Amino acid sequence: MTSSDLDADRCFLSYAVELSRRQAAAGLGGPFGAIVVRDGLIIAEGGNEVTAGNDPTAHAEIVAIRRACSSIGNFSLAGATIYASCEPCPMCLAAIYWARLDRLVFANTRAEAAAIGFDDALIYDEIPKPFDQRLLPTLRLALPEALEPFRIWQTSTTKVPY
Amino acid sequence: MTSSDLDADRCFLSYAVELSRRQAAAGLGGPFGAIVVRDGLIIAEGGNEVTAGNDPTAHAEIVAIRRACSSIGNFSLAGATIYASCEPCPMCLAAIYWARLDRLVFANTRAEAAAIGFDDALIYDEIPKPFDQRLLPTLRLALPEALEPFRIWQTSTTKVPY
Repeated sequence: MTSSDLDADRCFLSYAVELSRRQAAAGLGGPFGAIVVRDGLIIAEGGNEVTAGNDPTAHAEIVAIRRACSSIGNFSLAGATIYASCEPCPMCLAAIYWARLDRLVFANTRAEAAAIGFDDALIYDEIPKPFDQRLLPTLRLALPEALEPFRIWQTSTTKVPY
Repeated sequence: MTSSDLDADRCFLSYAVELSRRQAAAGLGGPFGAIVVRDGLIIAEGGNEVTAGNDPTAHAEIVAIRRACSSIGNFSLAGATIYASCEPCPMCLAAIYWARLDRLVFANTRAEAAAIGFDDALIYDEIPKPFDQRLLPTLRLALPEALEPFRIWQTSTTKVPY
């Protein structure tokens, strides 16, 4: 990484932090911001909208990813970097993989977020467990008809693979 | 659990599976469906819309959670159960925790999904790792201004905690 790459990273990350500040100051949601950058251009930005939008999935990173994909008309953000004001939670981290982002840059750590009440340690602990050992009561029912849609998908000639 | 509880679970799960079949048959997205049920009523349903909606976060569970919250005007789904045609991926699982759902019921397993090309094993492997040991190139930059929005949040008297 050259010093100008690092300068660009600092600049873009600083903007994501500014979004988090605006979000907190306006009382629109948690103090989190994120942007998606490709080829040196910001293609989308997002702030946490969980409470303002009544959407528990509307973390800044998810909002930015959805807007970026909408903006470029593609479900893949390959070649792009996401800048997040804070270390992503497991939901956002998984979304970053699904979106095929190339790279993640963040500022505040999950420990710093936990210190102000945004604690995702429980979710980090739960995800790797077998489903029947999680705190979330979970039941698996093997329905005989459930695999038929998988067969339809497998044999479809018109599907859009992803 | 009584037999009528199990009957209800089978019935609701079967409907989630039917959504997955429709999604696959119509070529709208991956063969996945989910519904959110509270007090015996379906409050939202969702199918995978990743390709149709150009949204890599639009897994069936996320779509159902967002619609359920929108429908009841609340970011919490406490007291509700999510029925998913397939075992949720880590993104959806984390979203289930953030949405405070009480319970999860699913049919197909992650191994069955992997067998038709929907493999989330890599994401399950990556999430528990320290960020600097993941396959996703990740950089942490401790910006001096980044904690200020956290302080604004902490001292805000008008915030909506969640």
